[in-house]
Amino acid sequence: MSKIGIIMGSKSDMPVMQDAIDILKQFNIDVEVDIVSAHRTPEKLFDYGKHAHTRGFSVIIAGAGGAAHLPGMIASLSPLPVIGVPVKSSNSIDGWDSVLSILQMPGGVPVATVALNGAKNAGILAAQIIGSSDAQVQGKIIAYKEDLKAKVLESARDLK
Amino acid sequence: MSKIGIIMGSKSDMPVMQDAIDILKQFNIDVEVDIVSAHRTPEKLFDYGKHAHTRGFSVIIAGAGGAAHLPGMIASLSPLPVIGVPVKSSNSIDGWDSVLSILQMPGGVPVATVALNGAKNAGILAAQIIGSSDAQVQGKIIAYKEDLKAKVLESARDLK
Amino acid sequence: MSKIGIIMGSKSDMPVMQDAIDILKQFNIDVEVDIVSAHRTPEKLFDYGKHAHTRGFSVIIAGAGGAAHLPGMIASLSPLPVIGVPVKSSNSIDGWDSVLSILQMPGGVPVATVALNGAKNAGILAAQIIGSSDAQVQGKIIAYKEDLKAKVLESARDLK
Amino acid sequence: MSKIGIIMGSKSDMPVMQDAIDILKQFNIDVEVDIVSAHRTPEKLFDYGKHAHTRGFSVIIAGAGGAAHLPGMIASLSPLPVIGVPVKSSNSIDGWDSVLSILQMPGGVPVATVALNGAKNAGILAAQIIGSSDAQVQGKIIAYKEDLKAKVLESARDLK
Amino acid sequence: MSKIGIIMGSKSDMPVMQDAIDILKQFNIDVEVDIVSAHRTPEKLFDYGKHAHTRGFSVIIAGAGGAAHLPGMIASLSPLPVIGVPVKSSNSIDGWDSVLSILQMPGGVPVATVALNGAKNAGILAAQIIGSSDAQVQGKIIAYKEDLKAKVLESARDLK
Amino acid sequence: MSKIGIIMGSKSDMPVMQDAIDILKQFNIDVEVDIVSAHRTPEKLFDYGKHAHTRGFSVIIAGAGGAAHLPGMIASLSPLPVIGVPVKSSNSIDGWDSVLSILQMPGGVPVATVALNGAKNAGILAAQIIGSSDAQVQGKIIAYKEDLKAKVLESARDLK
Amino acid sequence: MSKIGIIMGSKSDMPVMQDAIDILKQFNIDVEVDIVSAHRTPEKLFDYGKHAHTRGFSVIIAGAGGAAHLPGMIASLSPLPVIGVPVKSSNSIDGWDSVLSILQMPGGVPVATVALNGAKNAGILAAQIIGSSDAQVQGKIIAYKEDLKAKVLESARDLK
Amino acid sequence: MSKIGIIMGSKSDMPVMQDAIDILKQFNIDVEVDIVSAHRTPEKLFDYGKHAHTRGFSVIIAGAGGAAHLPGMIASLSPLPVIGVPVKSSNSIDGWDSVLSILQMPGGVPVATVALNGAKNAGILAAQIIGSSDAQVQGKIIAYKEDLKAKVLESARDLK
Repeated sequence: MSKIGIIMGSKSDMPVMQDAIDILKQFNIDVEVDIVSAHRTPEKLFDYGKHAHTRGFSVIIAGAGGAAHLPGMIASLSPLPVIGVPVKSSNSIDGWDSVLSILQMPGGVPVATVALNGAKNAGILAAQIIGSSDAQVQGKIIAYKEDLKAKVLESARDLK
Repeated sequence: MSKIGIIMGSKSDMPVMQDAIDILKQFNIDVEVDIVSAHRTPEKLFDYGKHAHTRGFSVIIAGAGGAAHLPGMIASLSPLPVIGVPVKSSNSIDGWDSVLSILQMPGGVPVATVALNGAKNAGILAAQIIGSSDAQVQGKIIAYKEDLKAKVLESARDLK
Repeated sequence: MSKIGIIMGSKSDMPVMQDAIDILKQFNIDVEVDIVSAHRTPEKLFDYGKHAHTRGFSVIIAGAGGAAHLPGMIASLSPLPVIGVPVKSSNSIDGWDSVLSILQMPGGVPVATVALNGAKNAGILAAQIIGSSDAQVQGKIIAYKEDLKAKVLESARDLK
Repeated sequence: MSKIGIIMGSKSDMPVMQDAIDILKQFNIDVEVDIVSAHRTPEKLFDYGKHAHTRGFSVIIAGAGGAAHLPGMIASLSPLPVIGVPVKSSNSIDGWDSVLSILQMPGGVPVATVALNGAKNAGILAAQIIGSSDAQVQGKIIAYKEDLKAKVLESARDLK
Repeated sequence: MSKIGIIMGSKSDMPVMQDAIDILKQFNIDVEVDIVSAHRTPEKLFDYGKHAHTRGFSVIIAGAGGAAHLPGMIASLSPLPVIGVPVKSSNSIDGWDSVLSILQMPGGVPVATVALNGAKNAGILAAQIIGSSDAQVQGKIIAYKEDLKAKVLESARDLK
Repeated sequence: MSKIGIIMGSKSDMPVMQDAIDILKQFNIDVEVDIVSAHRTPEKLFDYGKHAHTRGFSVIIAGAGGAAHLPGMIASLSPLPVIGVPVKSSNSIDGWDSVLSILQMPGGVPVATVALNGAKNAGILAAQIIGSSDAQVQGKIIAYKEDLKAKVLESARDLK
Repeated sequence: MSKIGIIMGSKSDMPVMQDAIDILKQFNIDVEVDIVSAHRTPEKLFDYGKHAHTRGFSVIIAGAGGAAHLPGMIASLSPLPVIGVPVKSSNSIDGWDSVLSILQMPGGVPVATVALNGAKNAGILAAQIIGSSDAQVQGKIIAYKEDLKAKVLESARDLK
Repeated sequence: MSKIGIIMGSKSDMPVMQDAIDILKQFNIDVEVDIVSAHRTPEKLFDYGKHAHTRGFSVIIAGAGGAAHLPGMIASLSPLPVIGVPVKSSNSIDGWDSVLSILQMPGGVPVATVALNGAKNAGILAAQIIGSSDAQVQGKIIAYKEDLKAKVLESARDLK
């Protein structure tokens, strides 16, 4: 069965990254969470990136702040689709540093970037990727979208 | 067999988006190219987004410039993973408008955003997504990465 | 009689958008408020945009944050003048995302954009639009501007 | 009959502002074009702003670059809806100066801002404003939007 | 004797502009403080700008936030040197709007712009301008700079 | 008689700074032009700043690009009013570096900053400063402003 | 023995700059801390820069905020490697001013710039510079990096 | 003898990076140039970073564009001082991406960042680092600075 690897550069990223874990659990998709720092544990980064596709992962979600190199380096090492979550860390220049460090990858090595602190969307995107070849998961996405719609329609009714 | 839908807001986006077509052809992945303008053909947008997942597409790549609403609106309508390509159009404010219009999607509706004018990476990411459940395509990604490496190593040797 | 449609992408936009409601009530102009999410209720968006001009609306005011597609998509669907209010939502990149997503519309589909969180000005602009063909409403605008002036002059007198 | 005032800060803005003139002529709407510089002809600015609504104008379109004060000062002086066109002049800081000088008006004095160099959209927006109380003009807008759509659909057909 | 006119767009700018008043009082230079809103009291703006040089002012200091047109419009109307203070108002886009609206004046009409919220420096600059033709005031500036130096040297000694 | 010191960090700044020289010559105000590099000739910088006010200068105009320290360092050393011209040099990040390096001076040491590449306005501002205590020069400023106005009015007439 | 000079423009920079002092003490490297203001104590700046390399310093760390000229001016005056720490001061425009004022030095006069408020990294970089010719210090850097790694690995274990 | 490693992410960076080679040759400092791509040759990156300090290098200069991970990853792997050169590549967002990806490193892993395309300064900084423990090289830096000064003074004389 498909499994999503969720990694982050520091435990201080956990409050943001928890949203990815929560939404994937809601879709009943297995996740394995780890801390991998591109700058402080480069050997672990290397090992993680090299072997993720042989360890049963379908997608990797990587969150990092500042000069965020984790998502791009994992994308360098792995053939799997890598989703990057720019985290707005303290001392960030308004989040621009992590956004641009993750988004502006050179030709050949994409990172699927989501919004600043957008870990929830990273989780949903991972589910959509699995759903693109798994009708059951795609059905859950469709149901999730229906649910989003219902909540907005209800809040519109409450307004009146 | 998996098929990728490649759409763009205007034919003027074609010089950028061609890179996605070319790389996917190189991977022998079927693409279907169309022009869908969120702002000028909203009915076609709606129809495209609503039915893409029942028409055999696995992934949609959508490119647009300026206040780029095409990728996000397709993501609103479809359960498929949507890859957004910010195109630096004329009169763009240095590309920031298309980058932010595509990247900063609200919780619940992700767009997998690639670099400004990064259509080639959009194509590779689409292949990686297919490859996450198709070992043959994943093998092509691995080979592609080996080829990238070989070319860099060769250019390094040429230097000396 | 003229009526203004005020819509927003989420009920969390209400504290900002309330300013538009308040100023239009002050001008005795009818408003109808609704929540329409481009990304979560696309069918409602479509229906709203397609029929607003036949339902008695003269102007639509649409507020949204982040990758704000609501004003532009309504402008795509409706022949009415659409006023866009960029809302500075949480996780926004300092408001730049909503400003650029609303302002930088392509040729053919304008959105009349006001300042970040400028819902009050959106209301006044809507009244000015009605006033451009309704002498009574234009008279109220003139009176409103006189009142603004009087208050500044009074605060200047207080200073001395 | 309704008439649109089109003004600009300098004759060097004409290549950009011509798009507003052209599209309004296409809609058969009367325009009167003038050069009014907030910084070099303040008396003319004052006179123009004070009397525009009594001279038969319904809407004013004002284009300016750099520290662009023309749209906002006309909005200060006139009860009419004012549409601002940020012009990317030479020595502009990438257009940000004119965009922010026009967009970020204080509460009480709105300017309906369009995209950088978006004079065509300013013209369309002016027509939409007239159309909000003139069914014939609104009909032209509807037809114009149909025409936009037809051209995109045709370019999509050409692609195949 | 020389007199400095200090004006601001709104009484909410007073906490920032007070610094200009305080430093000029410290230099024993006469100031006259007023509220003049470019957007809400355009007639007063006009009157102020037209007559300031005949009312005994040597320099005008003008502070404003957002789309800050007050300094530039006074510079348009008056032959006096005008010092502009960009004020970081609420709903400002991080102060960029007021900085660019004041700084980027077109050729022919300068505004001497100081740092964001830099009213103190506006006051010192005004004193330097008077001092450029008044040896006594220039002497005070020299003494002021000596005092700044002494305080830094003292804080350096305290460190040790 | 009053004299203006015009300095720049490099001879490559001359094409921009020539505008300041030209306009001051037009006002018949003496200028003395020099190259003073904060980073390459710090002793000359020091000497220039320390003695400018005793060498007959009334105002110093300093232009520099990139991390532009010349205007601020002269302001540190001299009691004279210093006008800073941000020059958009090659490898500048769109001019933001020189603008912010000159504008954002700390409390106590102002630089009168003009627009990016705004050397002409620096010259006019210098003339206005002299004019604030010299009625003849102020008269020239008034005449210059009348001339600006006449040219705009003429270009407006040409339009019709 | 090698000694690092740590200077800052104001005692208000101390809370940020303390991190450089602390990490260098941890490496048992001598530091000498001083306050040197480019704008308020230019003579001390000059003296410091001119003589630092003859007073036993190997590296200078200079922190400053806003239009931060201290690091660049020291680099102008000294042949030593200068490390610049952009400090996010109050009234800074989000830190961009200090970052660009320090980073964008002209050809010939480098400043080794670290991240916004990155004084800790300035200290480590200074140690690395000493370590590049001192095997014992380089050994401490290697041990420090091992320690960083161990802490991340431990926090990863805690997660599970 | 000391040796500088100069690496870059792609041969397309060579026109920028050549400036570092040239200036170091001028100082008679050995350089070894190589192409190492963080994203395309991660194994070579790893190997290079792990062993540089044992291969006789004193300093590493690393240039890269876009989401520039090369300097930071080398800094992660090596105890040597690493100088990062942000290269303005095609499709860069005005260079901001490479600047922020290199500058904003997390605590513990510094990169000594120089200006956009500032390879010449990277070379000088490397020489200064060697010069901090090598009086002969420091002497060359002092002579180089004298030469810079002489050229500016000569261009100032030419002006007159």
